[in-house]
Amino acid sequence: MTNHDQFLSQAAAEMKESAIRRMGTLSAARQDVISFAPGYPAPDTFPWSELREIAADLLSGRDGSVLQYGPTRGYRPLLDAIISIMTSRGIKTALQDVLVTTGSQQGLDLVARVLLDPGDVVLVELPTYTGAITAFRNVRAEMVGVPQQADGVDLAALDATYDRLRREGRRIKVLYVVPNFQNPTGLLIGLEKRTRLLEWAARRDVLIVEDDPYRELYFEDSASEADVRPIKADDEDGRVVYLSTFSKTLAPGYRVAWIAAAPALATKFEMAKQAADLLTGSLDQRMVYEALRTGLVARQLPMLRRSYQAKRDVMTRALHREFNGTVKWPEPRGGFFLWVDLPRQLDADRMIPRALENGVIYVAGAAFFVGKGGEGSNTIRLSFSAPTHERIEEGVSRLARTIRAEMEAFSVSAR
Amino acid sequence: MTNHDQFLSQAAAEMKESAIRRMGTLSAARQDVISFAPGYPAPDTFPWSELREIAADLLSGRDGSVLQYGPTRGYRPLLDAIISIMTSRGIKTALQDVLVTTGSQQGLDLVARVLLDPGDVVLVELPTYTGAITAFRNVRAEMVGVPQQADGVDLAALDATYDRLRREGRRIKVLYVVPNFQNPTGLLIGLEKRTRLLEWAARRDVLIVEDDPYRELYFEDSASEADVRPIKADDEDGRVVYLSTFSKTLAPGYRVAWIAAAPALATKFEMAKQAADLLTGSLDQRMVYEALRTGLVARQLPMLRRSYQAKRDVMTRALHREFNGTVKWPEPRGGFFLWVDLPRQLDADRMIPRALENGVIYVAGAAFFVGKGGEGSNTIRLSFSAPTHERIEEGVSRLARTIRAEMEAFSVSAR
Repeated sequence: MTNHDQFLSQAAAEMKESAIRRMGTLSAARQDVISFAPGYPAPDTFPWSELREIAADLLSGRDGSVLQYGPTRGYRPLLDAIISIMTSRGIKTALQDVLVTTGSQQGLDLVARVLLDPGDVVLVELPTYTGAITAFRNVRAEMVGVPQQADGVDLAALDATYDRLRREGRRIKVLYVVPNFQNPTGLLIGLEKRTRLLEWAARRDVLIVEDDPYRELYFEDSASEADVRPIKADDEDGRVVYLSTFSKTLAPGYRVAWIAAAPALATKFEMAKQAADLLTGSLDQRMVYEALRTGLVARQLPMLRRSYQAKRDVMTRALHREFNGTVKWPEPRGGFFLWVDLPRQLDADRMIPRALENGVIYVAGAAFFVGKGGEGSNTIRLSFSAPTHERIEEGVSRLARTIRAEMEAFSVSAR
Repeated sequence: MTNHDQFLSQAAAEMKESAIRRMGTLSAARQDVISFAPGYPAPDTFPWSELREIAADLLSGRDGSVLQYGPTRGYRPLLDAIISIMTSRGIKTALQDVLVTTGSQQGLDLVARVLLDPGDVVLVELPTYTGAITAFRNVRAEMVGVPQQADGVDLAALDATYDRLRREGRRIKVLYVVPNFQNPTGLLIGLEKRTRLLEWAARRDVLIVEDDPYRELYFEDSASEADVRPIKADDEDGRVVYLSTFSKTLAPGYRVAWIAAAPALATKFEMAKQAADLLTGSLDQRMVYEALRTGLVARQLPMLRRSYQAKRDVMTRALHREFNGTVKWPEPRGGFFLWVDLPRQLDADRMIPRALENGVIYVAGAAFFVGKGGEGSNTIRLSFSAPTHERIEEGVSRLARTIRAEMEAFSVSAR
């Protein structure tokens, strides 16, 4: 048999399976597990009948390009529609700035490949999104975490980290942030802090990568469109690379997202995409475009906001009832996630077998940290987006049962 | 304004626009250009009405997973169907060997990222597929070309190249081949040579990357299924990484392809894909699966073979008529491409403005070479797959007019 290890690139030798994906495999292996693990939108929110009509029309055969190869940048009318979306978010862009990507994950991958050499430093919020960790790790960049406050990344810590790294002779290229309802914490960066982050990036000559999948899903009881104004809206000198997606507002199965960046970078992203997959699926792009053109996406938004807000309410009420103050979380004002601090002595990763036994699963928080290990071991990310209200209630009960048993086992072994 | 160049990775600094894509941009800017440039399948061969029915059924809303995130490896029933296809091609595979990719371009990209470090050598047929060149270049691998004979890559030259590179202390990891109706030459590797290539790879401990998009499109007047037997069919020790796709047999707009490789490599490809785009489009995978399950893909094949064979006939007859022996090409026994040697004094790249003026476009052959430049300057790739018979006739006339004018201009300037 061929010895395959000797053929691996250095990046491949270091590649690891994603923790979230592993959770998927574990929970799929058991019956009736309530999963709070993946950040899946609820499929009952997808506008099935409208999408069926759109597909029927596109597949009439009148326009062969629907199933043909097409430009790497993206389907031109979709690019125009994206520019309009950007305008509505306060960001001025032109065709030369934007690029369709195969999901925001590809956007992150293109960012990593175009901007980062092995050893280059990416500053990230701590905890941060695992998909970004994977993309940055695969180009062998080094991620350094900066703690977050209630209104997002700690600016003093950010600058101190920058200073320390510079003294160590490191090249710091990028600050990666998820400003709106961050994955995994659900936090929102405050408006004033957004301005200061942009000033900081200009002063330190660092690019900001602003990953913004959740912004449309603000909860109207505690947030509004004004709160989710992109950092890029105030970017006058091409400092911010902005990513967003239709995965949370239409459906993730389409893999249609976009990047907006200075033309010099957008051109390189396009070249990198040519090598990565030539183009994003043509039918997918056309369906998303029709969903935009006909106003379908816009019509979905109020319903989505209400629906996910209601699910957050169900989950937080259940957590209050079951835990009565023994666990804590920042109240999400939008998005899909609730970030829970468990009692300090618990190890969320080691608790997984017991959770599965009780029929519930989550993502152990350690997956969202980038240090040498041990950080966030008593944290978990709960997604309230996909399960029904009843399953959320029941899942939280199972989680409470799991944690009580774990606490008991801990106190027995501590005695 | 931010100075963006300083932020580029080494790979990005070296990235170039694909020549084929550039042709697309050039020809789109003019009215009524007949394009022999891109290797597009003919959209009138796409089974529109069947695909419309499949889409309507999938989008009924009964199964939410149709538009949801899903496993990185691919939709399980599609993976099973791919395993059956592999069996029909003489290749034994199991679930742990296969992976769905977002087009074969992603397959090439994953191969590049998982196997190649900067400076590693990939041996390629000369000329070779531009998409592979781009993928290998983007990881900063070095490509070294080996000339082809009528039955494919020259074995003596291959081994001599290997020896020379080893003496120079180079690490030679991969031999990349397109054995069936190669892009760009249309050549078919002979069966005996396939066996010898596999033996050679084992002896020299090099992996073979076998890229096989065109195998189903053999022309029954001069080839049969026996002629397109994959190299991987005789691979007993995981020496061959095999890539194939539904882009040419169903439609390229779906971006659904696959890799089959030893489990140790397939696992790494999956991890690399997690970072690259999480998953291939769910609806796309489901539609391709339904097209396989219902026998639609299989029913398409005889029609596709006849249709492309007829187009090749139209093109070769027109070339004979217009050129009367002044240009040469190897007769394609399948696939989409015809590789033409122009009279030696012509430069196909410099001839492009005149071709566009005459309303025809091709890909200048130099794009398929990997040397320091100048190679293949009098060659062109003509795709006969997409245009109608009438457009092929007319396009070849325009090409002949272009070449005659170019020859005349050359002889005038030579005087």
